Amino acid sequence: MNSKIQIKLAPNSGFCFGVKRAISLAQEAAGSGKDIVTLGPIIHNPQVVQRLREKGVNDISNISEVVDETVIIRSHGVEKDILDLLKEKDVEVIDATCPYVAKAQELARFLSQEGYPVVIMGNADHPEVKAICSNISGKYFVLDKELILPERYYPKLGLISQTTKSLKDFQELAGKLVTYAKELRVVNTICSATSVRQQASLRLAEESDIMIVIGGRNSSNTKMLANICKNIIETQHIETAEELDEQWFDGKKKIGLTAGASTPDWIIVNIYNEINKCTGNGSPVITSIDEIPGYKE
Amino acid sequence: MNSKIQIKLAPNSGFCFGVKRAISLAQEAAGSGKDIVTLGPIIHNPQVVQRLREKGVNDISNISEVVDETVIIRSHGVEKDILDLLKEKDVEVIDATCPYVAKAQELARFLSQEGYPVVIMGNADHPEVKAICSNISGKYFVLDKELILPERYYPKLGLISQTTKSLKDFQELAGKLVTYAKELRVVNTICSATSVRQQASLRLAEESDIMIVIGGRNSSNTKMLANICKNIIETQHIETAEELDEQWFDGKKKIGLTAGASTPDWIIVNIYNEINKCTGNGSPVITSIDEIPGYKE
Repeated sequence: MNSKIQIKLAPNSGFCFGVKRAISLAQEAAGSGKDIVTLGPIIHNPQVVQRLREKGVNDISNISEVVDETVIIRSHGVEKDILDLLKEKDVEVIDATCPYVAKAQELARFLSQEGYPVVIMGNADHPEVKAICSNISGKYFVLDKELILPERYYPKLGLISQTTKSLKDFQELAGKLVTYAKELRVVNTICSATSVRQQASLRLAEESDIMIVIGGRNSSNTKMLANICKNIIETQHIETAEELDEQWFDGKKKIGLTAGASTPDWIIVNIYNEINKCTGNGSPVITSIDEIPGYKE
Repeated sequence: MNSKIQIKLAPNSGFCFGVKRAISLAQEAAGSGKDIVTLGPIIHNPQVVQRLREKGVNDISNISEVVDETVIIRSHGVEKDILDLLKEKDVEVIDATCPYVAKAQELARFLSQEGYPVVIMGNADHPEVKAICSNISGKYFVLDKELILPERYYPKLGLISQTTKSLKDFQELAGKLVTYAKELRVVNTICSATSVRQQASLRLAEESDIMIVIGGRNSSNTKMLANICKNIIETQHIETAEELDEQWFDGKKKIGLTAGASTPDWIIVNIYNEINKCTGNGSPVITSIDEIPGYKE
């Protein structure tokens, strides 16, 4: 029995509050009989988006496609001018923007109105960041953790973050930016669920021989989890059980799992069962995420 | 000639703007024929204080000693209640508070009025810090670079610094404090002359075999220079030429000098001439700090 492989899931893996809320709003709308679309994928998980499509909720990429459908604003939010266009079109809007993202948008607006050029730690191409930036009336800079700012000294600077970034990187950037401004006003907009999940994944990686990170390849927070784990131990980032490769587990005694904020429970459960099977671990097949060792620790 | 010992002084050594201003105000007052006192030493350099005493400017330690003298507020500033007492006594006051210190006091007051508990990076016993704290109406914490804060999460926190502290330590503290508050408002109150002097001293230390740091043993910024240099190379902190020990220079090829913001030129020049003499360097005796190699680089 001692030679049995240990498979553990990091606590706080999977759906966060904002994602649960968005999915639940979409499912509710799907049941209403109306024509429903989302602007872009509602969350960054292709499998969840596919299931919603099967329920009649289609994701469209351009607002010009909207005629008279009910439009769901996805969890990442949308740019201000798109909201304005939706108002013009006079269609029903269901706002599934994550409340933490909405708060970051509000803070960006506030800092800008107070005269602070705003530094956003994030990926310039990410929809959340685009939506945040659209709320800024003055100057702003989007920086990844790399510090590339015009070499000058600002009377004041604001600093916020894409909600799913690493707190450690944010702290480092704040420290660096101190030398760029007389006053630096830092508002920590990183979602605490994100930090907690990152910490839990880091701890699990430290005691594992391999980490399997589960979630959309387009999911920023899942990619961040994969990067954190890669710094510690061999790591594979997958979306579904089909991508598992038995050879990854040769000679491994401790397998760690973690999943991004947009990864649904059923995918995590599937992958856990599949690893149990392919490693010959012999643990019983489970049906709920709560049964996976580690998750409730 | 190539075996001659190199003696260099770090650029930006010695008197800063605020100290020059305070000394000049004190000398002007000394020439007025009035009875003049300073509350505490006007700057943290015993030799300068002694010279002012010889001109009739005495430093007193307690405000109760003031009868009808003109009172000079020293460069570090004084606590608010002492200013109030001086007003009550209705004596003439000459405010030689360094303008950068006055700015830090004003910012502490502002942050506190805006509802920010204020973190001051500094030494709680230093007169400048005491004066800054006396301007805060709400909660505040004085921290050295060590982070000892009640373990809780603040809705907002302000952060300023004693003007003569290390910018690097301030950056690190700002980074750490990000996890202690939703909003962290950092105002860099470190005097730029201090940062520039520290950087120049660090660079000189890196190319020297020994560093001689010149300035009052009670001078916070001089002690900081000594600490910075000690991390790089053997370092001696002295106040006057009398403390020099020939043995320090045995086998040394490159001697670096630096001096705190309250160290007068004549002490630096004396020490330079004395090192030249005791090392048998044979350089000519100089009379002005401008003639010391390195200073004007």
